[in-house]
Amino acid sequence: LHRIKASGLKLRFCTNETQATREKFVKKLQGLGFDISVAEVTAPAPAACRILKERSLRPHLLVHNDLVPEFAEIDKTNPNCVVIGDAAENFTYANLNEAFQVLIGMEKPVLLSLGRGRYYKETDGLKLDVGAYMKALEYACDVQAEVVGKPAKMFFESALAEMGVPPEQAIMIGDDIESDVGGAQQCGMRALQVRTGKYRSVPARHP
Amino acid sequence: LHRIKASGLKLRFCTNETQATREKFVKKLQGLGFDISVAEVTAPAPAACRILKERSLRPHLLVHNDLVPEFAEIDKTNPNCVVIGDAAENFTYANLNEAFQVLIGMEKPVLLSLGRGRYYKETDGLKLDVGAYMKALEYACDVQAEVVGKPAKMFFESALAEMGVPPEQAIMIGDDIESDVGGAQQCGMRALQVRTGKYRSVPARHP
Repeated sequence: LHRIKASGLKLRFCTNETQATREKFVKKLQGLGFDISVAEVTAPAPAACRILKERSLRPHLLVHNDLVPEFAEIDKTNPNCVVIGDAAENFTYANLNEAFQVLIGMEKPVLLSLGRGRYYKETDGLKLDVGAYMKALEYACDVQAEVVGKPAKMFFESALAEMGVPPEQAIMIGDDIESDVGGAQQCGMRALQVRTGKYRSVPARHP
Repeated sequence: LHRIKASGLKLRFCTNETQATREKFVKKLQGLGFDISVAEVTAPAPAACRILKERSLRPHLLVHNDLVPEFAEIDKTNPNCVVIGDAAENFTYANLNEAFQVLIGMEKPVLLSLGRGRYYKETDGLKLDVGAYMKALEYACDVQAEVVGKPAKMFFESALAEMGVPPEQAIMIGDDIESDVGGAQQCGMRALQVRTGKYRSVPARHP
């Protein structure tokens, strides 16, 4: 990162991290020695808040406790949609049923998903990501979720707009073949997959 | 049921009930006054056990505690497949991650699902059924589950064979438009949907 910044290249951190506010997430990375500020981060929760406001949606939140502050200014009374993020320990049987009941009770269920990752890696092993739980609710309610984070095209376009860079002059670097590499490619960017993090041998169907 | 039995019509109970052994399930219905015996019940767990034995599969079980006895004679050491049923309270974050880790660790993941219902009704409201959790694991591991209970064609065919009745002479009665009605129809039977239980207004796409 120091070398990229020193070279004068524009840089943006695109994360589907929804287990913490951007502030907390950035503080953690700073503590690890990374040169990063909140203003350099594109994340799903602020994007979701914009959508909720634009469409007068009042969410029932199925998210990580530490993400809730990002929705502080959003009216959550009498919900008319469900927002799902990587809720981790909050993905309890009771909470999943509650989100389902809110959705199935709507005439036309609206489900916003902060990403659609399949899984991610933590120190104690691979964990199901928000995409798996999104699929569960989609199937139960026969709806299609609107994905707000990566690999949504709009998400990458926001990041590019924030840098003022056209897609063909940008490159995305990440460990997720779909959310990072696939999403960026569909947006007209090139992409690199790193062989760290959640990386596993790349299936042949993702050339 | 008394009238059907008195009329001489053959009768079979086809259930995706996987929260209890057949014995326990039958005892409950008997207690409610129903004329039913274990020998009259076609259920997913015994069907799954036949498949496991035939294919030398050793399951990691993600099922309801009360269903575990149905798998008593099955070797469960060093699992090479996952069997998922309606685990209810056992659908914890930890248990879902564990089943996922077992699956994703296999070269060619094998997932058997005891049904693929979307939801069902309990006294305290609608609950996500096994199908929703099956979809979560399917998506995370990029596999297709093999469904053992309704609406699998093989399941209805077993029930018909047990009665010695061809499909065109049988009628299925149930409250689930997909598992009961759709499954039976695809098997060449006619079917009736009752407007009790989980019944909600029938979507137009299920004529």
